[in-house]
Amino acid sequence: MQTITVALDAMGGDFGPRVTVPAAVQALSHFPELKVILVGDRELITQQLTTIGFSPTHRLVIKHSDRCISNCDKPSLALRNSVGSSMRIALDLVADDEANACVSCGNTGALMALSKFRLKLLPGIDRPALVSVLPTTTGNKTWMLDLGANVSVDADTLFQFAVMGSALAEIHINERPKVAILNIGEEEIKGNDLVKRCSELLTQTKEVNYCGYIEGNQLFHNVADVVVCDGFVGNVCLKSCEGVAHLFLDKVKNHFSSSKLKGWIAKKLFSSLFNELKVLNPDQYNGASLLGLRGTVIKSHGQADTSAIINAIGEAVHEVKQQVPSRISDRLEAVLLERHY
Amino acid sequence: MQTITVALDAMGGDFGPRVTVPAAVQALSHFPELKVILVGDRELITQQLTTIGFSPTHRLVIKHSDRCISNCDKPSLALRNSVGSSMRIALDLVADDEANACVSCGNTGALMALSKFRLKLLPGIDRPALVSVLPTTTGNKTWMLDLGANVSVDADTLFQFAVMGSALAEIHINERPKVAILNIGEEEIKGNDLVKRCSELLTQTKEVNYCGYIEGNQLFHNVADVVVCDGFVGNVCLKSCEGVAHLFLDKVKNHFSSSKLKGWIAKKLFSSLFNELKVLNPDQYNGASLLGLRGTVIKSHGQADTSAIINAIGEAVHEVKQQVPSRISDRLEAVLLERHY
Repeated sequence: MQTITVALDAMGGDFGPRVTVPAAVQALSHFPELKVILVGDRELITQQLTTIGFSPTHRLVIKHSDRCISNCDKPSLALRNSVGSSMRIALDLVADDEANACVSCGNTGALMALSKFRLKLLPGIDRPALVSVLPTTTGNKTWMLDLGANVSVDADTLFQFAVMGSALAEIHINERPKVAILNIGEEEIKGNDLVKRCSELLTQTKEVNYCGYIEGNQLFHNVADVVVCDGFVGNVCLKSCEGVAHLFLDKVKNHFSSSKLKGWIAKKLFSSLFNELKVLNPDQYNGASLLGLRGTVIKSHGQADTSAIINAIGEAVHEVKQQVPSRISDRLEAVLLERHY
Repeated sequence: MQTITVALDAMGGDFGPRVTVPAAVQALSHFPELKVILVGDRELITQQLTTIGFSPTHRLVIKHSDRCISNCDKPSLALRNSVGSSMRIALDLVADDEANACVSCGNTGALMALSKFRLKLLPGIDRPALVSVLPTTTGNKTWMLDLGANVSVDADTLFQFAVMGSALAEIHINERPKVAILNIGEEEIKGNDLVKRCSELLTQTKEVNYCGYIEGNQLFHNVADVVVCDGFVGNVCLKSCEGVAHLFLDKVKNHFSSSKLKGWIAKKLFSSLFNELKVLNPDQYNGASLLGLRGTVIKSHGQADTSAIINAIGEAVHEVKQQVPSRISDRLEAVLLERHY
């Protein structure tokens, strides 16, 4: 069995080692091929390991760093002052082939800037994009990008996102992925210049199975396998949806815990309902990949809890196994040839 | 009791007179001061009235039009060819003081262009904005704009949206409304040029109680009373949230209807849960106002059902009573004075 080494930025996110360390330990039992390099303050990490009664092994090693990048740092500043930070060291490990993937809950802008600098972009790609999976009513998945790596993009970049998303989805489904652009209406006349121009580009290529515009309320109905948008729209949209999902889950939980029917009937009804609703819980889908790089980088939520970080580590393992970067590269080559670049 | 006359574009939306006519009839019993002018094809409207066993009265009159604006028409084209259409006639009635408000489920872009043309903008306003109410966990309301009247705006326009939203919220709450900008992070460095520039403008004014950026997942937690964003972001965000809400409501419904516990216990649990979740049902909040005009115009969802259209009519009645346009105008004047325009 090939070992898959994940460099985990243990200091990133709102909770740092308190959640990253237990997540790393638990992930080891989920993924037998996994080795984790915990990058961060050795003392804090060791403290957390002690708390849960675990010691470093050949599958769980610590790489010390005495700094971390703050969430308030501008990407340009983070890039300049990155040497020695946990995020930078985790990415260095990937760039230097000492790890197969990097997982971080840290500052998104900094992660993108540093990833570009250390891992470099695939040929034909101008900007990396954050992609994640949405659940759908049919049980299928929809890949959505960009979720916030870029606050503004041009139509060419959005077109590249479509190509990358299509290549990623192709790994998971057996047919040609249907690709849509997120818009404020389905009609051709709807939308801003960005989506209209990108729609023209997608209509002209044979390499992407473009199926037109999709509205926000159709996102979860498996109308498309891949949905592209700029990072501002994607980030606001995804976070809002997560907000609504948590609101519902909390209401259902509170309802049953405050219900007078404390008996087994309420319990049974609740647990079966909750199992059904669980698929809509955004925490299940933590771990957005930064596509377009010559390496695997997974961005986890800043507020991710232990199980959410395990999911992000799982996503990293999966993408390394599936050789996502080289598959995207192959697909890009075909598009570039078609466009006679 | 002062009569409030609403001109209802009976032909707009996905279902036309099949839902607008019963909605108008039912609205009459909800709002005793209401008179409705149903604008549209007299034959189709009469047919629907006959189906539900109702005839025109002094409170429900028909104004014939033999055309309607399609959802696929560009606003500019709709404007040129609008004469005689149901939407245009409904707006003419408001412009000519024969109705106090217009309600339409039709083409948003066309409604905005025609409203601007017929009712004119308030002084100091460059573009109208669609505003609607979001439910929050605390039971309070949050007003969000723009929800799709403008696919792109500049910082000055977004600033005007903040002023208008604040003036609207002030009517409903007793304190100075907290106003936020929707962004991809709370930190100052986050976001695109539009939100950064608008944030600067809002920081400089005393007329708006600006409280910074808000992320999508905070929208429903009553962090702010008013949230502003451009119409593309707002539309995608709101529709996505509605999509998630419907997904949850459907899952809960299906769960209980397919449950083996058919008895009164399941029924009781379900109905009390559903009553709690109902406040999150987006149909309760149908009816977005087009703010910034010298008159009241309410845009209803295209897919609105009867009860959703009744809500939109109710919103029109409410805004006419509260004299929303003149209140916004007063607030704008104060801001304009402050800025020494």
